[in-house]
Amino acid sequence: MKVGDVHYRTIWPGADGCSVDVIDQTLLPHRFQIRNLRTLDDACVAIRDMAVRGAPLIGATAAYGFWLAMQRSADDAAMVAAREAALATRPTAVNLRWALDRVYGALETLAPAERPDAALALATDIADEDAANCHDIGRHGLDLITTLHRQKGGDGPVNILTHCNAGWLATVDWGTATSPIYQAHDAGIPLHVWVDETRPRNQGAGLTAWELAGHGVPHTVIVDNAGGHLMQQGKVDLCLVGTDRTTRGGDVCNKIGTYLKALAARDNGVPFYVCLPGSTIDWTLVEGGDIPIEERDPGEVTMVSGADERGALTRVRVMPPQSPAANPAFDVTPARLVSGYITERGVVAAGREALEGAFPDLAAG
Amino acid sequence: MKVGDVHYRTIWPGADGCSVDVIDQTLLPHRFQIRNLRTLDDACVAIRDMAVRGAPLIGATAAYGFWLAMQRSADDAAMVAAREAALATRPTAVNLRWALDRVYGALETLAPAERPDAALALATDIADEDAANCHDIGRHGLDLITTLHRQKGGDGPVNILTHCNAGWLATVDWGTATSPIYQAHDAGIPLHVWVDETRPRNQGAGLTAWELAGHGVPHTVIVDNAGGHLMQQGKVDLCLVGTDRTTRGGDVCNKIGTYLKALAARDNGVPFYVCLPGSTIDWTLVEGGDIPIEERDPGEVTMVSGADERGALTRVRVMPPQSPAANPAFDVTPARLVSGYITERGVVAAGREALEGAFPDLAAG
Repeated sequence: MKVGDVHYRTIWPGADGCSVDVIDQTLLPHRFQIRNLRTLDDACVAIRDMAVRGAPLIGATAAYGFWLAMQRSADDAAMVAAREAALATRPTAVNLRWALDRVYGALETLAPAERPDAALALATDIADEDAANCHDIGRHGLDLITTLHRQKGGDGPVNILTHCNAGWLATVDWGTATSPIYQAHDAGIPLHVWVDETRPRNQGAGLTAWELAGHGVPHTVIVDNAGGHLMQQGKVDLCLVGTDRTTRGGDVCNKIGTYLKALAARDNGVPFYVCLPGSTIDWTLVEGGDIPIEERDPGEVTMVSGADERGALTRVRVMPPQSPAANPAFDVTPARLVSGYITERGVVAAGREALEGAFPDLAAG
Repeated sequence: MKVGDVHYRTIWPGADGCSVDVIDQTLLPHRFQIRNLRTLDDACVAIRDMAVRGAPLIGATAAYGFWLAMQRSADDAAMVAAREAALATRPTAVNLRWALDRVYGALETLAPAERPDAALALATDIADEDAANCHDIGRHGLDLITTLHRQKGGDGPVNILTHCNAGWLATVDWGTATSPIYQAHDAGIPLHVWVDETRPRNQGAGLTAWELAGHGVPHTVIVDNAGGHLMQQGKVDLCLVGTDRTTRGGDVCNKIGTYLKALAARDNGVPFYVCLPGSTIDWTLVEGGDIPIEERDPGEVTMVSGADERGALTRVRVMPPQSPAANPAFDVTPARLVSGYITERGVVAAGREALEGAFPDLAAG
């Protein structure tokens, strides 16, 4: 998508031919800055610090990181070490394992000398496929939004609520939940997006709002507490969210708080769709309760980052120093609360049967 | 309750005999500072700025403010003007109107010369009654917590989730939702409180955590997104919240986000109780949808206040300057999601019939 007049992806090979560039998302929306990754360790730090985040982008970053590792040493021991290091960065997004398995599986059949170039080709494929899949998710979501717009009979914009950032910044391009939004906006359908700020890291207020503003999509940021009330008031026509891992059974693990919005959507008859590429489905798990939920630094809760009146990035403490905080990063929305999944292969009904039917190749694993 | 070793109420007549002192809650938890109110206008500013907040305390502040007005002029025109000015401060809490009606109704039968002293006596009564009512709410809530503790069979502490601040800072003393917590803690029942930070103003992180820390009650602050996940994990035994206005029909208006927690409680079989004095019931309304919902300054969403690393109070912007924000301050939890009301007259079942049965005198109005 565009930043100003320039088209960017979130990750691309550096100009020197041996490094990787990413957008440093910890500085957005206050500063747009590129971070150059020269080693696998740089890539792991970028994932862990959330300079890159979002399940699809984490997968692509791990693949490019594998390429960086192979440039230094491409023997079997280096392969194992690279895989372990990347896997240890974050536990919840399944795309990480998916991308690493794909790269590792392809490279292990090759001689070490062939591995660096092959790793770059694989990382490029993974990135290109992600962008293409996200574009296709948008195309299928566009049909859904077009139908909703028709049902409203021209009565104001289609109001879409989204949580966290499942935008182009969370993927290589287009985004998952935002791809239908961008494509509907480009198609001239009047839209308005309610953006959950998404505490504790404010990826909605900081990233989704920045993306939507950049693309000219009308939007309003709200606190995470507000969405239920807006649904009660009839001010939400559709919820679109992403996912870090969806089980074979259809349970959706996503940013903490997603479950609460799904409950409110159900209580108010608002359709609740999850946008995901097939790579985000974990075919080894049926129940969402089996997904490991990352417990992050309580400092993300106790301290809030932002720009002070002079524009300097500052952290402020919002609670008493003696009070502890807990910070579970994800929750699980059971399939029973999901209206459907918007995938690169079309809109799929919630639950195991339809998912297996739409992805028989992946489901057979 | 105690601040350090000194017992404080949230509001009391000033030492000069003609003003009112309040705790300035906009500075907590970072600074404990008393604000002196000399005029009704001072009182209105304190309510509007949320130096004092919480439905019961807003009512008491309006009553004391009426006393301040009567000291300057106590004729009928001054009475009308004082009532209008106080009523215009905030629209949602019904205790404001309740307190003003009570003071106004009593004073209009008196000669102007008698009104100042009578106003002080009435404000004192309202404050004393609120403290007594909150104590009684705690006594009835204690029974509920004792039963839960027994049901858990000594298996860890009773885990209570609360939203916003329905603590002693929201009332004259004891609090509504916190009163059972303080009394259970004092009775030796092991407790742990999950404190929703409660964006946008962070009254949970800033005020409830400060209160609980001051009283030595074990607690953990969480983002508003986390409560549903904790309930799914079986980590919440009871939800206790306050209310700014509850209708005759039993619908509960409270801080934005309360409805989402009530939905999660219902979905996970967690009891969800609302703690309220009878003065918070609006007998003129049946449906919660008829309650006016205050729309507050979007700046509360776009900017977060806290203490920087040197302890200075600072505001930081958490979103792009070009993105708009909306800030509805309350939502309505329908009676169907409420387990019951903990009142000064005991625990009352959810819905109209039981409320009218428990408060026949008020319901007859």
